[in-house]
Amino acid sequence: MVTVVKIGGSILEKGVNPTILEDLKNVFLPHKILLVHGGGDIVTEIAEKLGKQQTFIVSPEGIRSRYTDWETVVIYTMVMVGKINKEIVSALHKVGINAIGLSGVDGSIIKAERKKKLIIMDERGRKRVIEGGYTGKIKSVNADLLNLLINNDYMPIIAPIAIGDEGELLNVDGDRAAAYVAGGVKADKIVFLTDVPGVLMNDKPIEKMNLSEAKEILPKIGFGMEKKVLASIEALEMGVKESIIASGLVENPVKSAIEHKNGTVISHG
Amino acid sequence: MVTVVKIGGSILEKGVNPTILEDLKNVFLPHKILLVHGGGDIVTEIAEKLGKQQTFIVSPEGIRSRYTDWETVVIYTMVMVGKINKEIVSALHKVGINAIGLSGVDGSIIKAERKKKLIIMDERGRKRVIEGGYTGKIKSVNADLLNLLINNDYMPIIAPIAIGDEGELLNVDGDRAAAYVAGGVKADKIVFLTDVPGVLMNDKPIEKMNLSEAKEILPKIGFGMEKKVLASIEALEMGVKESIIASGLVENPVKSAIEHKNGTVISHG
Repeated sequence: MVTVVKIGGSILEKGVNPTILEDLKNVFLPHKILLVHGGGDIVTEIAEKLGKQQTFIVSPEGIRSRYTDWETVVIYTMVMVGKINKEIVSALHKVGINAIGLSGVDGSIIKAERKKKLIIMDERGRKRVIEGGYTGKIKSVNADLLNLLINNDYMPIIAPIAIGDEGELLNVDGDRAAAYVAGGVKADKIVFLTDVPGVLMNDKPIEKMNLSEAKEILPKIGFGMEKKVLASIEALEMGVKESIIASGLVENPVKSAIEHKNGTVISHG
Repeated sequence: MVTVVKIGGSILEKGVNPTILEDLKNVFLPHKILLVHGGGDIVTEIAEKLGKQQTFIVSPEGIRSRYTDWETVVIYTMVMVGKINKEIVSALHKVGINAIGLSGVDGSIIKAERKKKLIIMDERGRKRVIEGGYTGKIKSVNADLLNLLINNDYMPIIAPIAIGDEGELLNVDGDRAAAYVAGGVKADKIVFLTDVPGVLMNDKPIEKMNLSEAKEILPKIGFGMEKKVLASIEALEMGVKESIIASGLVENPVKSAIEHKNGTVISHG
């Protein structure tokens, strides 16, 4: 069984949760795992220490994202790959997992198209078109390289940076990067670990949804979670069997998620 | 033919020399190449911007190196892997090389033993023993992973960070990391690209040396170059056929070095 696990920045802030490490090790023994991580808040912290103020933009759909100019994509890559990714890789080695840290740039693991223009809502609530900067729309995944690594017992740990047509670094969303990785390697499952117990409806986690229920519910979900449901839909449409959006703060979060004891399961149903 | 190329920080400071890129591409077509890079000065610059003053120590043999405490190894890794490595990988992709950036931590490519103590010369010229911090003595290289990648037509780009027995990040010397990588994959040649035209004797580059001549000359060479001659000796003793210490500032530096038209050739002969 091949599983892609996405670890959100919110559960990385206090360092890597040690229970996740042991859990990943136990799940890794019988299975193949690829891990995709986030970590945007740590990027913001270091960027601002380096004197580069970060600005966030809001799309007409209400999705908030980092405005990534050239200087920002360089810092974003530096922190995501050189700090957060290596801390995770180092922690996994400590528990005996031969993790290999990569970004989407390496071996063209994630290819994306640079967005030329972005539509944003300005402070007065009016739509405005701005330069796209260095953000990308994911186009494809180098599944050959990822399969080569997982078939040789490595656990790839992937930072959400893609490579553009001209070799440029591009900021891409971590949840959707995970979905494309899962689709690319034809993963059985994708698990999104976050800081809430699943997709909440009236403050209670939904246990199960099928693809059409997920699409239906999408506009009613709070931001942040919405991106995970969208990424789940994308993953399922690329052939992944099920997506589980689960808490990363419980004991054995990955094992309990794949056993359907933690989080919301979205399946073809 | 397998060639390991080490690019020093001194020729990276002004960005990646575009002639090196095309040159690597031309040499890469018929050969397999692994690249190891430096970049310490850029690390120092960013560390100090982040408010972490860098200190340098001098060994009794006169070798100057960065004192690497925990905070420094985290910044060192962040900049080496997340910034310098990715800039090289991105530039190589731009000329059509499917480069894959790695550090010695990833897939345990470079394993090292943490140095518990360091002997340094203090300001008054007296020997003193200090805590080793996070520097490592290289023990082994994961040649299986490197061979897997080069046999699948990737060019590995390796940052000089090793992994310790407990998964810790360790600062290792780039020249010696290159030597161990070359020894590990049984490379035919190792090329050290630097900012001088070879090993200089009376201001003129030496054309050729054999192993015993290299050992003899070692104590008479200026610091910096001494590390490259030492790394050449190590590489040759691990089975590499020849080492070329050459200028990275000329046109087609790699091609001219492997054709013995640039730099000092050190061989068994």
